[in-house]
Amino acid sequence: MSDHHVAPVAPNPTPAPTPAHETPYYAVVFTSVRTDEDGEGYARTAERLSELVQSIPGFLGEDSAHTPGGLAISVAYFRDLAGIDAWRHDARHREAKRYGREHWYERYSIHIARVEHSHGFTRRDFPGAA
Amino acid sequence: MSDHHVAPVAPNPTPAPTPAHETPYYAVVFTSVRTDEDGEGYARTAERLSELVQSIPGFLGEDSAHTPGGLAISVAYFRDLAGIDAWRHDARHREAKRYGREHWYERYSIHIARVEHSHGFTRRDFPGAA
Repeated sequence: MSDHHVAPVAPNPTPAPTPAHETPYYAVVFTSVRTDEDGEGYARTAERLSELVQSIPGFLGEDSAHTPGGLAISVAYFRDLAGIDAWRHDARHREAKRYGREHWYERYSIHIARVEHSHGFTRRDFPGAA
Repeated sequence: MSDHHVAPVAPNPTPAPTPAHETPYYAVVFTSVRTDEDGEGYARTAERLSELVQSIPGFLGEDSAHTPGGLAISVAYFRDLAGIDAWRHDARHREAKRYGREHWYERYSIHIARVEHSHGFTRRDFPGAA
Protein backbone atom coordinates (compact mmCIF):
# COMPACT_ATOMS: atom_id res chain seq x y z
CA MET A 1 0.00 0.00 0.00
CA SER A 2 2.49 2.57 1.15
CA ASP A 3 5.53 0.53 0.26
CA HIS A 4 6.34 3.35 -2.14
CA HIS A 5 7.53 5.55 0.66
CA VAL A 6 11.04 5.82 2.02
CA ALA A 7 11.86 8.02 4.96
CA PRO A 8 14.47 10.63 4.05
CA VAL A 9 17.78 10.14 5.83
CA ALA A 10 18.08 13.92 6.04
CA PRO A 11 16.27 15.31 9.08
CA ASN A 12 12.76 16.32 8.23
CA PRO A 13 10.57 16.83 11.26
CA THR A 14 8.24 19.04 9.26
CA PRO A 15 5.33 16.64 8.59
CA ALA A 16 2.73 17.36 11.21
CA PRO A 17 1.76 14.10 12.89
CA THR A 18 -1.28 15.76 14.40
CA PRO A 19 -4.57 14.01 13.74
CA ALA A 20 -6.55 16.49 11.69
CA HIS A 21 -9.35 14.26 10.49
CA GLU A 22 -12.66 13.21 11.86
CA THR A 23 -12.87 9.56 12.87
CA PRO A 24 -13.44 7.04 11.58
CA TYR A 25 -10.85 7.07 8.84
CA TYR A 26 -8.43 4.38 7.73
CA ALA A 27 -4.74 3.72 8.17
CA VAL A 28 -2.47 1.47 6.15
CA VAL A 29 0.53 0.49 8.26
CA PHE A 30 3.41 -0.78 6.15
CA THR A 31 6.38 -2.23 8.09
CA SER A 32 9.38 -3.44 6.13
CA VAL A 33 12.94 -4.67 6.20
CA ARG A 34 14.92 -3.85 3.07
CA THR A 35 17.50 -5.78 1.12
CA ASP A 36 20.82 -4.10 0.31
CA GLU A 37 19.84 -3.78 -3.33
CA ASP A 38 19.55 -0.68 -5.43
CA GLY A 39 18.87 2.09 -2.98
CA GLU A 40 18.79 4.71 -5.71
CA GLY A 41 16.16 2.99 -7.80
CA TYR A 42 14.12 2.48 -4.68
CA ALA A 43 14.31 6.15 -3.72
CA ARG A 44 13.29 7.23 -7.24
CA THR A 45 10.30 4.91 -7.26
CA ALA A 46 9.35 5.95 -3.74
CA GLU A 47 9.33 9.58 -4.72
CA ARG A 48 7.27 8.97 -7.84
CA LEU A 49 4.66 6.90 -6.02
CA SER A 50 4.57 9.38 -3.17
CA GLU A 51 3.37 11.94 -5.70
CA LEU A 52 0.92 9.52 -7.33
CA VAL A 53 -0.85 8.55 -4.11
CA GLN A 54 -1.80 12.16 -3.54
CA SER A 55 -4.13 11.96 -6.53
CA ILE A 56 -6.09 9.08 -4.96
CA PRO A 57 -9.51 10.32 -3.83
CA GLY A 58 -9.69 10.23 -0.06
CA PHE A 59 -5.94 10.20 0.55
CA LEU A 60 -5.37 12.19 3.75
CA GLY A 61 -1.62 12.05 4.30
CA GLU A 62 1.33 9.86 5.18
CA ASP A 63 4.07 9.60 7.81
CA SER A 64 7.25 7.58 7.42
CA ALA A 65 10.20 6.68 9.60
CA HIS A 66 13.24 4.51 8.88
CA THR A 67 15.83 3.30 11.34
CA PRO A 68 19.11 3.11 9.41
CA GLY A 69 19.82 -0.54 8.75
CA GLY A 70 16.61 -1.53 10.50
CA LEU A 71 12.86 -1.29 10.24
CA ALA A 72 10.94 1.17 8.12
CA ILE A 73 7.37 2.06 8.99
CA SER A 74 5.02 4.07 6.80
CA VAL A 75 1.47 4.92 7.75
CA ALA A 76 -0.84 6.23 5.02
CA TYR A 77 -4.22 7.65 5.98
CA PHE A 78 -7.34 7.45 3.82
CA ARG A 79 -10.87 8.73 4.25
CA ASP A 80 -12.36 5.31 3.48
CA LEU A 81 -11.66 1.81 2.19
CA ALA A 82 -12.56 2.84 -1.35
CA GLY A 83 -9.45 5.03 -1.46
CA ILE A 84 -7.30 2.18 -0.19
CA ASP A 85 -8.75 -0.14 -2.84
CA ALA A 86 -8.15 2.41 -5.57
CA TRP A 87 -4.51 2.73 -4.54
CA ARG A 88 -4.12 -1.03 -4.17
CA HIS A 89 -5.32 -1.54 -7.74
CA ASP A 90 -3.36 1.32 -9.28
CA ALA A 91 -1.28 -0.25 -12.07
CA ARG A 92 1.87 1.77 -11.38
CA HIS A 93 1.65 0.96 -7.70
CA ARG A 94 1.16 -2.75 -8.40
CA GLU A 95 4.14 -2.85 -10.72
CA ALA A 96 6.32 -1.14 -8.10
CA LYS A 97 5.20 -3.63 -5.45
CA ARG A 98 5.95 -6.57 -7.72
CA TYR A 99 9.42 -5.22 -8.43
CA GLY A 100 9.88 -4.45 -4.74
CA ARG A 101 9.15 -8.05 -3.74
CA GLU A 102 11.75 -9.25 -6.21
CA HIS A 103 14.47 -6.77 -5.32
CA TRP A 104 13.93 -4.44 -2.40
CA TYR A 105 12.25 -6.23 0.48
CA GLU A 106 13.44 -8.97 2.78
CA ARG A 107 10.01 -8.91 4.37
CA TYR A 108 7.12 -6.67 4.98
CA SER A 109 3.73 -6.60 6.60
CA ILE A 110 0.65 -4.56 5.85
CA HIS A 111 -2.10 -3.81 8.34
CA ILE A 112 -5.28 -2.11 7.20
CA ALA A 113 -7.03 -0.56 10.15
CA ARG A 114 -10.01 1.63 10.94
CA VAL A 115 -8.96 4.57 13.12
CA GLU A 116 -11.51 4.95 15.88
CA HIS A 117 -9.80 7.50 18.08
CA SER A 118 -6.95 9.93 17.73
CA HIS A 119 -5.41 12.77 19.64
CA GLY A 120 -2.24 14.78 19.59
CA PHE A 121 0.12 16.97 21.54
CA THR A 122 1.98 20.04 20.34
CA ARG A 123 4.54 21.87 22.49
CA ARG A 124 3.38 25.43 22.97
CA ASP A 125 6.64 26.92 21.72
CA PHE A 126 6.84 24.64 18.66
CA PRO A 127 7.11 26.68 15.44
CA GLY A 128 3.73 26.79 13.84
CA ALA A 129 1.92 25.67 16.97
CA ALA A 130 -1.57 27.09 17.30
CA MET B 1 0.49 4.63 24.45
CA SER B 2 3.70 3.48 22.88
CA ASP B 3 5.56 6.72 23.44
CA HIS B 4 7.83 4.66 25.62
CA HIS B 5 9.55 3.15 22.65
CA VAL B 6 12.62 4.42 20.87
CA ALA B 7 13.97 2.73 17.80
CA PRO B 8 17.55 1.60 18.27
CA VAL B 9 20.03 3.44 16.11
CA ALA B 10 21.98 0.21 15.77
CA PRO B 11 20.67 -1.98 12.96
CA ASN B 12 18.07 -4.38 14.24
CA PRO B 13 16.01 -5.91 11.47
CA THR B 14 15.17 -8.87 13.68
CA PRO B 15 11.62 -8.03 14.77
CA ALA B 16 9.36 -9.93 12.45
CA PRO B 17 6.83 -7.51 10.99
CA THR B 18 4.73 -10.41 9.83
CA PRO B 19 1.09 -10.31 10.91
CA ALA B 20 0.70 -13.36 13.11
CA HIS B 21 -2.62 -12.58 14.71
CA GLU B 22 -6.20 -13.20 13.76
CA THR B 23 -8.17 -10.07 12.87
CA PRO B 24 -9.65 -8.05 14.31
CA TYR B 25 -7.01 -6.81 16.71
CA TYR B 26 -5.97 -3.29 17.61
CA ALA B 27 -3.05 -1.06 16.76
CA VAL B 28 -1.82 2.04 18.55
CA VAL B 29 0.13 4.20 16.12
CA PHE B 30 2.36 6.71 17.90
CA THR B 31 4.09 9.28 15.67
CA SER B 32 6.44 11.78 17.29
CA VAL B 33 9.02 14.49 16.82
CA ARG B 34 11.52 14.74 19.65
CA THR B 35 13.16 17.70 21.35
CA ASP B 36 16.95 17.70 21.71
CA GLU B 37 16.68 17.10 25.43
CA ASP B 38 18.08 14.24 27.45
CA GLY B 39 18.44 11.40 25.00
CA GLU B 40 19.85 9.10 27.65
CA GLY B 41 16.99 9.52 30.10
CA TYR B 42 14.58 8.96 27.25
CA ALA B 43 16.29 5.75 26.18
CA ARG B 44 16.31 4.42 29.76
CA THR B 45 12.61 5.16 30.21
CA ALA B 46 11.82 3.71 26.80
CA GLU B 47 13.55 0.47 27.67
CA ARG B 48 11.83 0.17 31.04
CA LEU B 49 8.38 0.79 29.59
CA SER B 50 9.07 -1.55 26.72
CA GLU B 51 9.47 -4.30 29.30
CA LEU B 52 6.42 -3.20 31.28
CA VAL B 53 4.04 -3.24 28.32
CA GLN B 54 4.76 -6.91 27.78
CA SER B 55 2.97 -7.69 31.03
CA ILE B 56 -0.25 -6.06 29.79
CA PRO B 57 -2.85 -8.75 29.03
CA GLY B 58 -3.51 -8.85 25.31
CA PHE B 59 -0.28 -7.15 24.27
CA LEU B 60 0.75 -8.75 20.96
CA GLY B 61 3.92 -6.94 19.97
CA GLU B 62 5.43 -3.70 18.81
CA ASP B 63 7.43 -2.29 15.90
CA SER B 64 9.38 0.96 15.95
CA ALA B 65 11.33 3.04 13.45
CA HIS B 66 13.11 6.35 13.87
CA THR B 67 14.56 8.54 11.15
CA PRO B 68 17.61 10.26 12.70
CA GLY B 69 16.66 13.85 13.37
CA GLY B 70 13.16 13.23 12.04
CA LEU B 71 9.99 11.33 12.73
CA ALA B 72 9.66 8.32 14.98
CA ILE B 73 6.80 5.88 14.53
CA SER B 74 5.89 3.09 16.93
CA VAL B 75 3.04 0.69 16.39
CA ALA B 76 1.91 -1.44 19.33
CA TYR B 77 -0.56 -4.25 18.75
CA PHE B 78 -3.14 -5.44 21.25
CA ARG B 79 -5.75 -8.19 21.22
CA ASP B 80 -8.52 -5.80 22.27
CA LEU B 81 -9.33 -2.32 23.56
CA ALA B 82 -9.23 -3.55 27.16
CA GLY B 83 -5.48 -4.08 26.83
CA ILE B 84 -5.02 -0.60 25.39
CA ASP B 85 -7.03 0.89 28.26
CA ALA B 86 -5.01 -1.04 30.83
CA TRP B 87 -1.80 0.30 29.36
CA ARG B 88 -3.20 3.80 29.06
CA HIS B 89 -4.05 3.83 32.76
CA ASP B 90 -0.83 2.23 33.98
CA ALA B 91 0.64 4.65 36.53
CA ARG B 92 4.25 4.26 35.41
CA HIS B 93 3.23 4.76 31.80
CA ARG B 94 1.21 7.87 32.67
CA GLU B 95 4.08 9.39 34.60
CA ALA B 96 6.46 8.75 31.69
CA LYS B 97 4.04 10.40 29.27
CA ARG B 98 3.63 13.43 31.51
CA TYR B 99 7.41 13.81 31.79
CA GLY B 100 7.73 13.24 28.04
CA ARG B 101 5.33 16.06 27.22
CA GLU B 102 7.38 18.40 29.40
CA HIS B 103 10.80 17.39 28.13
CA TRP B 104 11.04 14.98 25.22
CA TYR B 105 8.38 15.74 22.62
CA GLU B 106 7.92 18.64 20.29
CA ARG B 107 4.72 17.02 19.14
CA TYR B 108 3.12 13.67 18.79
CA SER B 109 -0.04 12.03 17.58
CA ILE B 110 -1.76 8.83 18.64
CA HIS B 111 -4.14 6.85 16.48
CA ILE B 112 -6.04 3.92 17.94
CA ALA B 113 -7.25 1.66 15.18
CA ARG B 114 -8.99 -1.65 14.68
CA VAL B 115 -6.99 -3.86 12.31
CA GLU B 116 -9.39 -5.42 9.86
CA HIS B 117 -7.00 -7.00 7.42
CA SER B 118 -3.34 -7.87 7.36
CA HIS B 119 -0.93 -9.75 5.20
CA GLY B 120 2.78 -10.12 4.80
CA PHE B 121 5.62 -11.05 2.52
CA THR B 122 8.80 -12.90 3.39
CA ARG B 123 11.62 -13.44 0.91
CA ARG B 124 12.16 -17.15 0.43
CA ASP B 125 15.87 -16.98 1.24
CA PHE B 126 15.40 -14.78 4.31
CA PRO B 127 16.95 -16.39 7.42
CA GLY B 128 14.18 -17.98 9.40
CA ALA B 129 11.70 -17.89 6.56
CA ALA B 130 9.22 -20.75 6.61
